[in-house]
Amino acid sequence: MTTHRFTPTTWHNVLGTVPPALRIADGDTVITQTIDAAGYDKDGTARWPGPNPMNGPIFVSGAEQGDALVVEIIRLTPIRTTGWTRQVLAANVVDPERVRDLPPREKADWIIDTDALTARLKEPVAGLEHFVLPLDPMIGCFGVAPSLGQAFSTATSAENGGNMDYRGFRPGTTAYFPVEVPGALFFLGDCHAIQGDGEIVGTGVETAMEVEIRLSVLKGHKPNWPRGEDAEAIFTVGNARPLEQALQHATTEMFDWLTSAYGLSPVAASHLLGQVVRYEIGNVFDPAYTVVCKIEKKWLPKA
Amino acid sequence: MTTHRFTPTTWHNVLGTVPPALRIADGDTVITQTIDAAGYDKDGTARWPGPNPMNGPIFVSGAEQGDALVVEIIRLTPIRTTGWTRQVLAANVVDPERVRDLPPREKADWIIDTDALTARLKEPVAGLEHFVLPLDPMIGCFGVAPSLGQAFSTATSAENGGNMDYRGFRPGTTAYFPVEVPGALFFLGDCHAIQGDGEIVGTGVETAMEVEIRLSVLKGHKPNWPRGEDAEAIFTVGNARPLEQALQHATTEMFDWLTSAYGLSPVAASHLLGQVVRYEIGNVFDPAYTVVCKIEKKWLPKA
Amino acid sequence: MTTHRFTPTTWHNVLGTVPPALRIADGDTVITQTIDAAGYDKDGTARWPGPNPMNGPIFVSGAEQGDALVVEIIRLTPIRTTGWTRQVLAANVVDPERVRDLPPREKADWIIDTDALTARLKEPVAGLEHFVLPLDPMIGCFGVAPSLGQAFSTATSAENGGNMDYRGFRPGTTAYFPVEVPGALFFLGDCHAIQGDGEIVGTGVETAMEVEIRLSVLKGHKPNWPRGEDAEAIFTVGNARPLEQALQHATTEMFDWLTSAYGLSPVAASHLLGQVVRYEIGNVFDPAYTVVCKIEKKWLPKA
Amino acid sequence: MTTHRFTPTTWHNVLGTVPPALRIADGDTVITQTIDAAGYDKDGTARWPGPNPMNGPIFVSGAEQGDALVVEIIRLTPIRTTGWTRQVLAANVVDPERVRDLPPREKADWIIDTDALTARLKEPVAGLEHFVLPLDPMIGCFGVAPSLGQAFSTATSAENGGNMDYRGFRPGTTAYFPVEVPGALFFLGDCHAIQGDGEIVGTGVETAMEVEIRLSVLKGHKPNWPRGEDAEAIFTVGNARPLEQALQHATTEMFDWLTSAYGLSPVAASHLLGQVVRYEIGNVFDPAYTVVCKIEKKWLPKA
Repeated sequence: MTTHRFTPTTWHNVLGTVPPALRIADGDTVITQTIDAAGYDKDGTARWPGPNPMNGPIFVSGAEQGDALVVEIIRLTPIRTTGWTRQVLAANVVDPERVRDLPPREKADWIIDTDALTARLKEPVAGLEHFVLPLDPMIGCFGVAPSLGQAFSTATSAENGGNMDYRGFRPGTTAYFPVEVPGALFFLGDCHAIQGDGEIVGTGVETAMEVEIRLSVLKGHKPNWPRGEDAEAIFTVGNARPLEQALQHATTEMFDWLTSAYGLSPVAASHLLGQVVRYEIGNVFDPAYTVVCKIEKKWLPKA
Repeated sequence: MTTHRFTPTTWHNVLGTVPPALRIADGDTVITQTIDAAGYDKDGTARWPGPNPMNGPIFVSGAEQGDALVVEIIRLTPIRTTGWTRQVLAANVVDPERVRDLPPREKADWIIDTDALTARLKEPVAGLEHFVLPLDPMIGCFGVAPSLGQAFSTATSAENGGNMDYRGFRPGTTAYFPVEVPGALFFLGDCHAIQGDGEIVGTGVETAMEVEIRLSVLKGHKPNWPRGEDAEAIFTVGNARPLEQALQHATTEMFDWLTSAYGLSPVAASHLLGQVVRYEIGNVFDPAYTVVCKIEKKWLPKA
Repeated sequence: MTTHRFTPTTWHNVLGTVPPALRIADGDTVITQTIDAAGYDKDGTARWPGPNPMNGPIFVSGAEQGDALVVEIIRLTPIRTTGWTRQVLAANVVDPERVRDLPPREKADWIIDTDALTARLKEPVAGLEHFVLPLDPMIGCFGVAPSLGQAFSTATSAENGGNMDYRGFRPGTTAYFPVEVPGALFFLGDCHAIQGDGEIVGTGVETAMEVEIRLSVLKGHKPNWPRGEDAEAIFTVGNARPLEQALQHATTEMFDWLTSAYGLSPVAASHLLGQVVRYEIGNVFDPAYTVVCKIEKKWLPKA
Repeated sequence: MTTHRFTPTTWHNVLGTVPPALRIADGDTVITQTIDAAGYDKDGTARWPGPNPMNGPIFVSGAEQGDALVVEIIRLTPIRTTGWTRQVLAANVVDPERVRDLPPREKADWIIDTDALTARLKEPVAGLEHFVLPLDPMIGCFGVAPSLGQAFSTATSAENGGNMDYRGFRPGTTAYFPVEVPGALFFLGDCHAIQGDGEIVGTGVETAMEVEIRLSVLKGHKPNWPRGEDAEAIFTVGNARPLEQALQHATTEMFDWLTSAYGLSPVAASHLLGQVVRYEIGNVFDPAYTVVCKIEKKWLPKA
């Protein structure tokens, strides 16, 4: 297996069927540096307009419609000592009549300590003097080209992944995307140093990151929605509005996973989900919201 | 302070302004046994029709409109060796066209081991042979009489609490409800031996429970929505449909809590929420859904 | 049949099981004067606090759980030369981030010409110099006591009717409500001189009205949701959030009506609904939204 | 001005930036024949896979980002004597637990009388013996290429139009789309002989149609969402899920139209909308729902 160092010179604001920037073999590893959601690189230089410029796409040999693209997130290393957030709650996460009272959603600067692996606000804020956050790096936006020649803005997400802004996409997690086009055409970018559930200010701590991932092909196992796993759990991801529909997609996908790969009957899958399921909210800010349906591996029958 | 043993002989299917069944002093403790969601008691005898018959109401001296009723959940002890669930996912948690394929939502019986504190299905289900769950007892439905003479079915929830079906309402948690009527008029019932997020089969493991709680009055601190805390975190509860509105209520309530009791500015509260908030889904089954907005205490300024 | 002149001296802010203010026979007519949504009577005197004080309840002899209460709206006569509205769109009907830009939702006064049957703003507004509206009087809030001892605020609506704010509840329309308690316990109030679809400023032109209705009992024909008809069409009413759920309730109720009373198969009912259904939005402002599902009578088979 | 007869030999399943099939001048008229939603032409021959194959795109000279493309729907002539529908309600328009009871959503054939301009089911259905519908031809899917290189499936709709399935897009109506790319790149197809509100069986009466439209450019007047007008009214179109968000988009767009082109203050626009707005539901079936916000021209100040 080869490790590729991939240094893009152009970026993309859609996930779609565009010419590959890199071709790799099934199972290869890629190391690449991402620019932030607004297109600024590790030196603070503007490289590409937002939203969420993507590195890629990467063509993975052998990937064909009907397969799953397996993305092992090996490492996420912050490579800039600054980050930024929006400093006020997004309008859609508070009671509508209360939006009138919110201050403007200006940008706030953060200091990232790449040795101590912490982040803090650059300007002191009363009451948050000790608000020094341990980093929890994550990929905000990644996925593959969608079906039928569609191309989706990197502001949103769908069956093919995209801007899911789920903090569980961190080192140690493996993601599975549905391959719809030859080579899968994998994109990634928009990494966050840390982020709360729901991305409710509209950002995590946005920064530049060095990413190491391994891409491989699982023949004939195309999921309907992104799936993932880490040491503890398996999970499925629904991307849609309203929030209930994102939950329906994630739950249906987990139900399908349990009844196919794990051989459970609909009743057995329901019992398991009913008493031990955990839901997480990826984002409630982007055009499509993201809900994650999770089952700890200890409850699973042997697949 | 007094400890009351309260043995109801009638129950209620609404939370409303009805004559008190027990009167206690501010700070008293109550021990009472609940019947299950369908009205069966610890001996399996039908005592009252469903849904969710409530013990109470308990009149707490000194509680008046404008106060918070503080409910410390001290103990939840299973008092029956049987429980039951629905055995198929509810129709509203899967993709609509997939509902056609679901089997009927029949009842399943469970065995509760009150010594080992575990629950398991009575009839073996293929693939779930080792599905023995540690109990995590919780109160499914509790709260106070709502404002303006309203009375809400124990199938649903609102500002006054009710059928929130949130598994975080367990021993060690303290809940705060908005007092709207003299004496608060506190109700409780519908305890579950264990339940997954969202109550997505429409039940937890429904059973009879002995509950020990302490009720007290926090003068002049009426929240708009239920609040809670445990050793690790504070949280707020939004009850509404759609799921996004439940999240909006919970987030707005937490925003108000942080900006009032903790003295944070709107910007400071947004920074804190934006990067460290956690959301949990209480239920996505009942007429009103329940979303919990949680902040770990370690991030809070001194209140 | 008797015609009753009913002059209330107290009002109600819930639809619930409270002592009747008037008892009538099946088929009697009632003439009563309503006060406005804020509790002001025809002379502008404050009589009762809001929201939406109700005349009633009226006990209709013979009405029992399982019946439909039939409400013929015979006449709505404006009895005050003033009305009022909110003067800015409600926050929940515009894009959330745009709420920041909306001016405050203050009250605006209107002049009602009870001879010409028109309404116009009291203070001139640039661009609306010729905005003189023909009256289209309607009942904003009416219905019966709900089941199980529940009592719902007159701000909202449910299976039992309530604050539906649907402009189709005008003279010539007959409404059908599900009877859940002896005598049905009928309430009404909150009449509007005119209102747009959705009640999107949160009000119609709120005023006092003399209402003439005829109440009768349709034995054993309890609908699940309110139904109605006029000379041209039959319709069903769904009250819920989100808007899609209100539509689901209304559509399901119409499907049930077509397949039971009109004898259509599910396929035939679907064909009819699919190609000729009309939807109307009652309100998108109140806690429960209202969607109306309508079929013109010319398409119906003989019932 | 020129009239072009446009006969496509390939079709598109996305609205995106693809090479033009026809180039016309600003103000030219186009006559073209569409194939049905499943790709069958006027002779019943399969020409292209679904969903909703589009004729186009048409490049309109002079159209640039920031303009509106004006589409006058001059004529829609049915050119096939057969049509088809789905014969059962879609799962998402009925109460979720009721989906279990619905029969399969099979295809039904219709006879279109192109002289009498009526449609009827090919196979008799009990109770619908006299269900002969007057045609009301409409364009189900049309619009322009979206911004930023995005490409959207013809199954859905967005700011750029697309599969709105609104029966108001009929002859006599003029639509306005936001131009995002040079030449606008206009697509159309998926015509229906008739359709109810909401397209709740998932189809109108799907058939082939000859369409005559005139395309012109309104410089510098890019709307945010599609707009339209006919002899009686102006309207705006919101495409999104949930239904409430579609309504928010449409209402905000109308608010912007009234406050910009018609010079109304926010308060004046709110008064007008509040008391005379009409909403129509285009579709509640496609991935994005469509809500129309309409104001009769008689209420408008001079623009």
